[in-house]
Amino acid sequence: MITSPHNDKLKLIGKLRARKHRDREGLLVAEGEDLVAMAAAAGWEEVALLRAGEDVDPELLDRVSELGSGTRVIGVYRQRWGAPSAAAVSVYLDGVGDPGNIGAVIRSAHALADGPVVLGPGCADPYSPKALRASMGSIFARPPARGEPVGTRVALERGAPPLAGVEVSPPAVICLGSERDGLPADFPSDLRAGIPLREGGPDSLNVAMAATVALYELGNRMAAHG
Amino acid sequence: MITSPHNDKLKLIGKLRARKHRDREGLLVAEGEDLVAMAAAAGWEEVALLRAGEDVDPELLDRVSELGSGTRVIGVYRQRWGAPSAAAVSVYLDGVGDPGNIGAVIRSAHALADGPVVLGPGCADPYSPKALRASMGSIFARPPARGEPVGTRVALERGAPPLAGVEVSPPAVICLGSERDGLPADFPSDLRAGIPLREGGPDSLNVAMAATVALYELGNRMAAHG
Repeated sequence: MITSPHNDKLKLIGKLRARKHRDREGLLVAEGEDLVAMAAAAGWEEVALLRAGEDVDPELLDRVSELGSGTRVIGVYRQRWGAPSAAAVSVYLDGVGDPGNIGAVIRSAHALADGPVVLGPGCADPYSPKALRASMGSIFARPPARGEPVGTRVALERGAPPLAGVEVSPPAVICLGSERDGLPADFPSDLRAGIPLREGGPDSLNVAMAATVALYELGNRMAAHG
Repeated sequence: MITSPHNDKLKLIGKLRARKHRDREGLLVAEGEDLVAMAAAAGWEEVALLRAGEDVDPELLDRVSELGSGTRVIGVYRQRWGAPSAAAVSVYLDGVGDPGNIGAVIRSAHALADGPVVLGPGCADPYSPKALRASMGSIFARPPARGEPVGTRVALERGAPPLAGVEVSPPAVICLGSERDGLPADFPSDLRAGIPLREGGPDSLNVAMAATVALYELGNRMAAHG
């Protein structure tokens, strides 16, 4: 039982709160029984696993926790990255800086599509605590990929022709940029499509909402056509 | 220029961080230039408006801020509540406890539907800071309603027949419960519908994602049918 705050595992967990260290070590920290159970269910082996009162003094675990007091378990795992690959429908994100949105898209893609979420430049760390929580553990079942999207690139943009009317065959990649700036001006897309919004309403959907609607729309059509 | 932390407006803003006080006073606090500008654009008159360096010592404003340092403006407004009313498509939430989800649904409904978001029992405060931010100001343009939904109640439930195949005419109300428990067992719905998810994936979508997909699906069909 760990009773010293200078324990190496506790120090590692504390350090991994910073993206710099997560990137350098290639590790992630999962807090809570739900996430740890989902990692195990997906066959992830932990680098370290600390249960309050079993492996470590509960108070010391709370000190390195992101969520505050009452943490029952923290696991450390090696990050996994898929390779972009052809799937009927997948998602590519470019410059999406909010980790909650990254995690939410990973969850929605896991629920609605057969392909991975591919992360381009400028995206938040999908292995940050906030992204992990928003993914509800889907990140363990379907780790994100890095690199270039594979398939017909459907750029989701404001004011583009409605996605519902756009012809696209698998493999299709729904491509989204940041809510404010959209995709880079020189992003090489094959098609442009939009989600029609009401006049007088907001000029965009949240990026995770837009991705989910597009996954629903294209997923339904791919299923119907194939 | 306010230079004392004992100033009444500062004390009010601090107090309004607690839902209990927001409910009792019927007030809300909006932080940041974007939200304050959207309130003004929607014709909301402020009860108090404090600009850092103009009306108040910036350090004192930071102290009552939810977002930490560098806050430029905080506005206090009187809460507004719409009445549930018939619209082609609206949303009813029951027991949705996460304020980020409430705000996200308010934003999506503003973008995709003509009706209000109606909040039933057990919902998070839509006028909490987190909900306000997630609404991206849509809450000012389209305040939520409280009470019973008006129209054909389409209960969104796991494993129910696909929404895409369900016949429904306006006024339709998409009804959602909490992610974990769903709608109450005795909720009086007219129709049940679901969003088909892949096998092997998560057993639910995030509640705001599900609401947005349903708004998209029904909104498109209402528009197509006239």
